[in-house]
Amino acid sequence: MTLPSIREAASDLLNDYVERLDADRLEEWLDLFTEDATYTIIPRENVEQNLPAAIIWCPNKNVLRDRIVSLRNANEFNLHYDRHVVSNVRLRPHAENTWDLEANYAVFQTTMEGQTKLFSVGRYRDRIRLDGESLLFCKKYVVVDTFSVPTLLATPL
Amino acid sequence: MTLPSIREAASDLLNDYVERLDADRLEEWLDLFTEDATYTIIPRENVEQNLPAAIIWCPNKNVLRDRIVSLRNANEFNLHYDRHVVSNVRLRPHAENTWDLEANYAVFQTTMEGQTKLFSVGRYRDRIRLDGESLLFCKKYVVVDTFSVPTLLATPL
Amino acid sequence: MTLPSIREAASDLLNDYVERLDADRLEEWLDLFTEDATYTIIPRENVEQNLPAAIIWCPNKNVLRDRIVSLRNANEFNLHYDRHVVSNVRLRPHAENTWDLEANYAVFQTTMEGQTKLFSVGRYRDRIRLDGESLLFCKKYVVVDTFSVPTLLATPL
Repeated sequence: MTLPSIREAASDLLNDYVERLDADRLEEWLDLFTEDATYTIIPRENVEQNLPAAIIWCPNKNVLRDRIVSLRNANEFNLHYDRHVVSNVRLRPHAENTWDLEANYAVFQTTMEGQTKLFSVGRYRDRIRLDGESLLFCKKYVVVDTFSVPTLLATPL
Repeated sequence: MTLPSIREAASDLLNDYVERLDADRLEEWLDLFTEDATYTIIPRENVEQNLPAAIIWCPNKNVLRDRIVSLRNANEFNLHYDRHVVSNVRLRPHAENTWDLEANYAVFQTTMEGQTKLFSVGRYRDRIRLDGESLLFCKKYVVVDTFSVPTLLATPL
Repeated sequence: MTLPSIREAASDLLNDYVERLDADRLEEWLDLFTEDATYTIIPRENVEQNLPAAIIWCPNKNVLRDRIVSLRNANEFNLHYDRHVVSNVRLRPHAENTWDLEANYAVFQTTMEGQTKLFSVGRYRDRIRLDGESLLFCKKYVVVDTFSVPTLLATPL
């Protein structure tokens, strides 16, 4: 792919990621990951101190898939709405057909009564790979500034 | 228009929209709509349940114009500042010279004492059209996650 | 530079600015300014009333450099994390090799206990200049909506 087209494809991938999460279309959200994709949510403090302890760590897509199934069983009814705002997208070549994709995010949650709160801010430090014709996440690495949120474990970021 | 130039023009239109709203230049903000433009603010819950009830519905630009005049008469002094943050802009062709434009937004309001609060988050699901040389909104459709805000009716989003 | 490449370079500059601030790499953040760069933080109310009173005003990079040194001495330990979300980036030619760069921003601060608050929203009204091979800020002009924040003086925006 040429550089302009990879930029657009990466932007589309990030938009798909956000749209599917915000719309609670988690099964389609899974389609954006390669089979060997890792998924990590880790506090910023641990990253900066080189501590490996993550809040969530899925070593491949099957584990992530199981997680979504559990989430569906635990939450029969979706009790809130999510809304992502993402900015400062940065794309850098990593290896052949592989790029590092970074961006800042803020996630807002709204109750069924229509009240909105800031839920989490942080930075995506992801890796994306051309898999056949599709650009997919092979590594999703979410560095969360916000971690004092009891419900954080339940919601993919 | 070629695809890169329509992307830039759409981005400029969205920037104009946000800048004029944030600066309370509502009369110039009206210039960004076609005469037959519809303007809707609707709760997300209603969209997802296929309920048509909107918070605000203007069937054409004249109705929207009247609304702005009323707003000016009701609020002689602007009692807050607005600030939009918009991300995940998505442009898709709809018909000849017409595109669907979607984006997530967060709006912050600041009092005259300089205190800022999150006011509303949601998603724009708009349609834009090439009208002569200008790209304009022919449909502004604001899906609001946040709706428990008493002053919501007064402020265009 | 051609228009597409200046757009990308400006986007990279803004990303560098945000990444270095958020990571508390203030000394490298200084590298993004020309020697004659001015740095201003001014309340929106003053801008709209044509009052010149700024919260912070540095007439050149040396003064800004001194400010960062003071900040380092005052805060031996960084007591919070910053996270910027920036949108609606607007680039306009100003003079040869000089462009006006505007954007909306929201800054979130997180305590060491992982609790996040909205810290400041406003608009960058900057000027950037091609300095040899590098694009740098020759004017950083931060119009803050939020100004009722006691710690505002300590943190570059």
